[in-house]
Parts: sequence; structure tokens; C-alpha cells
Amino acid sequence: MSIAIRKLDSADAGFRDQLSAVLAFEASEDEAIDRAAATILADVKARGDAAVLEYTQRFDRLQAASVAALEIGKDALQAALAGLPEARRHALQTAADRVRAYHERQKKECGSDGFLYREADGTELGQKVTPLDRVGIYVPGGKAAYPSSVLMNAIPAKVAGVQEVIMVVPTPDGVKNELVLAAAAIAGVDRVFTIGGAQAVGALAYGTATIPQVDKIVGPGNAYVAAAKRRVFGVVGIDMIAGPSEILVICDGATDPDWIAMDLFSQAEHDELAQSILLCPDADYIAKVEASINRLLDDMPRKDVIRTSLTDRGALVKVRDMAEACEIANMIAAEHLEISAQEAQQWADQIRHAGAMFLGRFSSESLGDYCAGPNHVLPTSRTARFSSPLGVYDFQKRSSIIRVSEEGAQTLGKIAAELAYGEGLQAHARSAELRLKK
Amino acid sequence: MSIAIRKLDSADAGFRDQLSAVLAFEASEDEAIDRAAATILADVKARGDAAVLEYTQRFDRLQAASVAALEIGKDALQAALAGLPEARRHALQTAADRVRAYHERQKKECGSDGFLYREADGTELGQKVTPLDRVGIYVPGGKAAYPSSVLMNAIPAKVAGVQEVIMVVPTPDGVKNELVLAAAAIAGVDRVFTIGGAQAVGALAYGTATIPQVDKIVGPGNAYVAAAKRRVFGVVGIDMIAGPSEILVICDGATDPDWIAMDLFSQAEHDELAQSILLCPDADYIAKVEASINRLLDDMPRKDVIRTSLTDRGALVKVRDMAEACEIANMIAAEHLEISAQEAQQWADQIRHAGAMFLGRFSSESLGDYCAGPNHVLPTSRTARFSSPLGVYDFQKRSSIIRVSEEGAQTLGKIAAELAYGEGLQAHARSAELRLKK
Repeated sequence: MSIAIRKLDSADAGFRDQLSAVLAFEASEDEAIDRAAATILADVKARGDAAVLEYTQRFDRLQAASVAALEIGKDALQAALAGLPEARRHALQTAADRVRAYHERQKKECGSDGFLYREADGTELGQKVTPLDRVGIYVPGGKAAYPSSVLMNAIPAKVAGVQEVIMVVPTPDGVKNELVLAAAAIAGVDRVFTIGGAQAVGALAYGTATIPQVDKIVGPGNAYVAAAKRRVFGVVGIDMIAGPSEILVICDGATDPDWIAMDLFSQAEHDELAQSILLCPDADYIAKVEASINRLLDDMPRKDVIRTSLTDRGALVKVRDMAEACEIANMIAAEHLEISAQEAQQWADQIRHAGAMFLGRFSSESLGDYCAGPNHVLPTSRTARFSSPLGVYDFQKRSSIIRVSEEGAQTLGKIAAELAYGEGLQAHARSAELRLKK
Repeated sequence: MSIAIRKLDSADAGFRDQLSAVLAFEASEDEAIDRAAATILADVKARGDAAVLEYTQRFDRLQAASVAALEIGKDALQAALAGLPEARRHALQTAADRVRAYHERQKKECGSDGFLYREADGTELGQKVTPLDRVGIYVPGGKAAYPSSVLMNAIPAKVAGVQEVIMVVPTPDGVKNELVLAAAAIAGVDRVFTIGGAQAVGALAYGTATIPQVDKIVGPGNAYVAAAKRRVFGVVGIDMIAGPSEILVICDGATDPDWIAMDLFSQAEHDELAQSILLCPDADYIAKVEASINRLLDDMPRKDVIRTSLTDRGALVKVRDMAEACEIANMIAAEHLEISAQEAQQWADQIRHAGAMFLGRFSSESLGDYCAGPNHVLPTSRTARFSSPLGVYDFQKRSSIIRVSEEGAQTLGKIAAELAYGEGLQAHARSAELRLKK
């Protein structure tokens, strides 16, 4: 049975509205989930370890005498790594090395040294950049346990210079994911606790007798985890709350259609809400991609998920030309943007909003998901309009430096006083004026 | 009547608990306010301009035929600037010039050019940095209307390259603040609407027929504005939700005690919840500062606010030595940290967490609030542990660039496929494998 994937044409009168309908996604904020998360957070804040133990027993069916007994030691992490088949261990190590190399480069290029400059009167101004002290990484348990996510969240933190990275990962019924533990070993995670849910978020945000308070929590989780992260924002930093994953492919019509079909599948297989969209100026080529989709689908182990995702949220869009494709791409501001075309750079230059751009016919998104080097934690749901891939900069913060010379205080003091009086803040004014020479 | 300001000694057994009690501040999240904000947001989203008009009439007692009639044109902004007394206009212009110069420097130093590097097999990796398209700036009306905040929020956005900066400022009963409008003119704000509250946040976040949708909303506001910003986070970007302002002064005991007293006042005068703390190793000096506080208070127009703030939230802390002061400062992670000491840099080197550091006896916080150049929008309530001053980087975002060569796809493809099979994502694996040479 062929997939009923939506086909749109940018020349149609109603195209913009049709596209908006395809893109529309309202993150359902369930009040019941939010209240449950709030209750758990308050309980963990008040009762610490005891509350964490109880919720872990209740939700993960995991008995433990103490939270300390839920910690996985470094030996166990190393053992998990040593226990992997050779090919898998090599792949994980190579991926980690490449992710580390990219983020080292990013650290060097993103202003991590801060700056300081001196003005003529001796006043010095600048910015100091420092790593966060301690970071928590949430790793989901069960089916969505991705070792690649451990690498992508932990490595930038360690490259930034974070002293202590604490990972939490629920292990329902005590079932551990060895690949996830191996990834933690390779990424340099300092401590691992087998806890999850809102209780893990609370433990990291407030600290307990056993689990130290962190400064920021990153990593994906279910609706309870997302609700808890929203609620502790301000007590600690958080990363973006991720929506469903998306790929937007712009193709000039000269890539093997099977490749493009499989790239659309690779996004669609994540979950039913994932979104795969193709923009192409060539109607014949779009038909070929559709034929590939229908021919290749049955061989996919996750074909049911792919079918639902493509049917409900996918689209094949005929555009006037590549320039219009870029314009539409800026409107969509996709998490992943593949530009599968001859002159990919030329079109990339026209893109203002995208989480990551995959340029040229050989840059499949999956290479970036695992091992190209750049981070796979990317802004979803059009948030690429204002946010960035997870990076070293997310684990650093800046402090302004202001060192006003005696001479500088004479000129700046008069200006500050004038403006402070204008705002009715007389102590501000007097504080500046006291430093004026009599 | 002298101020009953709290005195602590770090040598006391209960010191850490006492300090924690002083620092404790729970942002009260009022559920009623949150629900009211949610209702207004939903209404603005559904009814656009009509809803904005109604709420503006209800809350600001401002009648207008249309939202367009609530826009203040550029001519009016220029007229406000021209109408200022010469000294004030000069001060505002000088402050703006210095803020712009600092942020230009910051833009140059914070990796705004992005980067791209090529590997041996021709694969290219990097990062593209682009400004946000459109930004909204919320400026409070009434007593907390600070023209300096207009400069501090708008200038970094323009320096970053934001094409359109839209300011909203409520004008209850139609009363406009000419200094705020003049600051908008100087800062290069593109459009100004006299709306406020949750309705203004909603208009900027969702867009209306008259007010364009923005990509990020920055700037302080009352509890309704803060609640609305939290709720639209994700639809648009937001800046931090600010808590009460704080100053922490570390003094070696050799600065004129009147200066330090006035610096503490300058924070305390903001509002009753503002916090001013002094750390000093010299008990005699602390007594002198206390004497200055009591002598100088009565001359302060805002003495009632200062008295309440210092009594409820202030503290004079005797520490063992300057090194201990720095250690405590890292725990407090203050918004503003003054190091009023001979070897200020030596102590600054020991500081890991602070929004801004004011070094040396002449660097009063008020100079930084108005005109030194660095931003005065700073992380409060210990969030300097994980966040930064508002800056050019808040108005830019990054996109990863991944261009894998045909040769690169051969090595990366095998690694990606190995890991994808490990995660049970077969379409990811196939997408990489299709690019392998047969």
C-alpha cells in the first residue's frame, strides 16, 4: 500500500496556508503532567534522598537501600566500554574523537578567551569567560536511550572546562543500557546515577545529601522531565525544550532519489510526530522520490512509524526554483536542512535560519547525527530563528569587567550622575559624584 | 534612627546558615497572575489587534481607534530627543556611544564571524553566525521607566545586525516619558508602540495585523509581563526573568567609607527587595561604613526604600581575609561585584561567578549602570553561575555547517551505520550506507 504523502506546489494560490498547516505543531502542555512534576519537585526539595528513593521505587520499580546505591561507579562504566564488540567500541570512540575535535575548534573560535581593552584615560573594559562548575545531563531510559546523545551533551561540557558532569539515567526494573554507559565512559562523565523523571531533575536542581546541586541541566526527556525542567529554570540553567525532530531537504533533482527517500525516512523513523519535507523545482524528480519511498518502505524495520510520520506530517513540495526553496527554508527554519545540490554553498549563503546545514549530495543527516563532529542537539519547531546548536558556549558564561581609572571616573561620573538624576535615582548619582575630585 | 543592618562574622559557627538565610529569595509565582497572563495571551493570539486595543483601554485607560494609532513615529522620537535639555541629551548620547563601542568590540571578540575548516579528505565543518531578524524590547511604563535600559537592550541588538527592533512601552493615561522616547531615537529603535503588559508580549510573540511577530523578546517588566514571557518562551526567545537587583562589595578597608556606604545605597534605592552586602576583613572599617550609612541616609530622597532594603536584605560581613571574601563571593554569585581594593585584579582572578565586576576604588557600580559601556542587564539571584550579561551574542544564533566529501562519506558512513544499528535506527544506517561506493 503506497504512502499518501502530501504533495504541495508553491505556485498554488493557497500554498502558504497549506504549508503553515503542515508546519503547525502545538506542543500540548498537559496541566496534569505539569502539576505532577511540580509536586515531585517540591517533595524532592523538601525531603531530598528519601523522596528520590521513593519515586524511583514507585516509577522504575527499583529497590535500593540508599541513593548512593543507585550510583554506577567508574569501574562499571569502563567495564561496559570494554564489554562492547570491537567494531562498536571503535565506532563510538571515533565518533567521540570527532565530536571533541569539532568542539575544541568551536571553543577556540567562539571567544572563550574573553577580552580586555584599555582606553586613553586608563579605564579598562572587558569580559571574562569561565566554565560552569557542575552540569547535569539527563539521559532517557528505555527505547529512546541514545548513546550518541550522551556524547553530544557531555563532550561540549568537558571541552568547556566543566569540572563535574553528572549523568542521570532511569533504569526501569534495573535494566541498564551498556552502550549508554560505555558512551558515558568515553565522554568523561564524572558520576552516573540510575534515577530519572522529575525526581532526577529535582535532585540535580536542588541537590540532596548524596547528589550535588548542578548549575545547568541539559538533555532530552519525556513530558514529565520537560515540565520539571521548565519549572526549575532560574534555579539552574536548562537547554531548550525540544519538540519533534525535523528534516527539510532542498534538492536540485540530480541526487539518486533513493538517497533522498532514505534521508526522509531517517527523520520519520524517530517518531510519529517527526517531520520530513522535500523542496524541489523538478516535478518529475519528486515523482521518482515518491516511487523510491514506496519501493523502499517495506524493508524498513520501523516502517509503521515512518508511514505514520510521512502521512501525517510529511510533504513533497514542488517549488519554482532553488531560490524560492531557500526562501521557504528560511520561513520553516528547520532543525536539519539538507541542500542536496550541485552548488550547495551558493544556496547555503541564502539561508538565514537552520539548526544545521548538510551541504552536497554526500552529507546525509545521519552522518551529522553520529560522527561528523558538530552537535546533534539542535533547535526544533522554528526556534532556529533565535537559538543555536548545543555548544561549548552553553557551558560557559561571561562576566563583564569594568575598571575605571581615577581620570575616567571624572568624565564618566558626570554623565552617570546626569542620567541618574534623570531617572530619579539620587544615590546612584551621589555614588558617582563622591568620586569626583573636589 | 539608625538602621538595624545585619552584621555577620564568617568565623561564627552558624555563619553559612546565616548567610544562606540572608540570600534566600523565593520568587513568588502567583498562580492567579499566571492564569491571567495566559488568558490575555490566548485572546491576543486569537483576536490580534482587537484584543490588544481592548486590554490597552482597560489597563492603561488609553482610547485608540486602532493599534496603528498607538504607534509613535520616528519624527516624534526625534522630537523627544531634540526637546531634552542640552546636558541630558549630551549625557544620553555619550552613554549610547560608549555602550555601542563596547558591544562592537564584543561582537568582534565573541566569534561572530563563525568558522569553517577542511579535513584531509575534503570534508568541511564549521558554523555560520547570523543575527536574529526581528526583536521586541519591552520597556516598563511609569516609575520604573529607565531610558538607560532602552540603550542597554536596543544597542546590542542593532550592533548584532538585527534588522528591526520593535519597542513596546505602556503609557498609562497617555503619559509618555520623553527621556525614554529620546533613548529609543538614539539607540536606533525602528518602531515604538505604546502598549504594555501581557497583551504587548502576546502581540510581539504571535504578531497581529499591525504588529509584526518578533523572534525574541527582551527587557524587564512586572509580574504579568514576566509570566507572559515565560509562557511564550519557545514560540520566541526570551532573556532571563530578572529577580531583585544585588550588589556585593568586597573592600580591603582602605576606601573612603562614605563611598562604600553610597554604593550600598545605590543598590538599595532600587526597591525594598534589592540586596546590598559588604564583605571586609577589617571590623573597624565595617564600623566606619555603618557610621557613614547612618550619617548619609537622611539626605537621600529614597531613604525609606533604602532603609527597608538594608534592614531586610542587607548585611555587613566581617571575613577572615580577602581570599575568604572571594570564596564567599563565588558562593553568592552576585549580579554586581565591586572589588574596592588595592590589588583588585589579584582578587578578580579568584572570582568564577559574577554578572559584572567593578575593580578598583573608582569603579562605582553606577558608572557601569549608565555609561562605562558593558551591559547593565545582568544575571540576578545566583544565576551568574550559569548565565551572562545581555550581549551581542543574545541577538545572534549559529547554524552548524557539515559538508562531507565523497571520500569522507566512506569512512563516516561506516561509523554512523554501526552506531545507528546499535540504536535501532535502521533508516539512519541505510541513509549512510547508500552513499558508500559499491
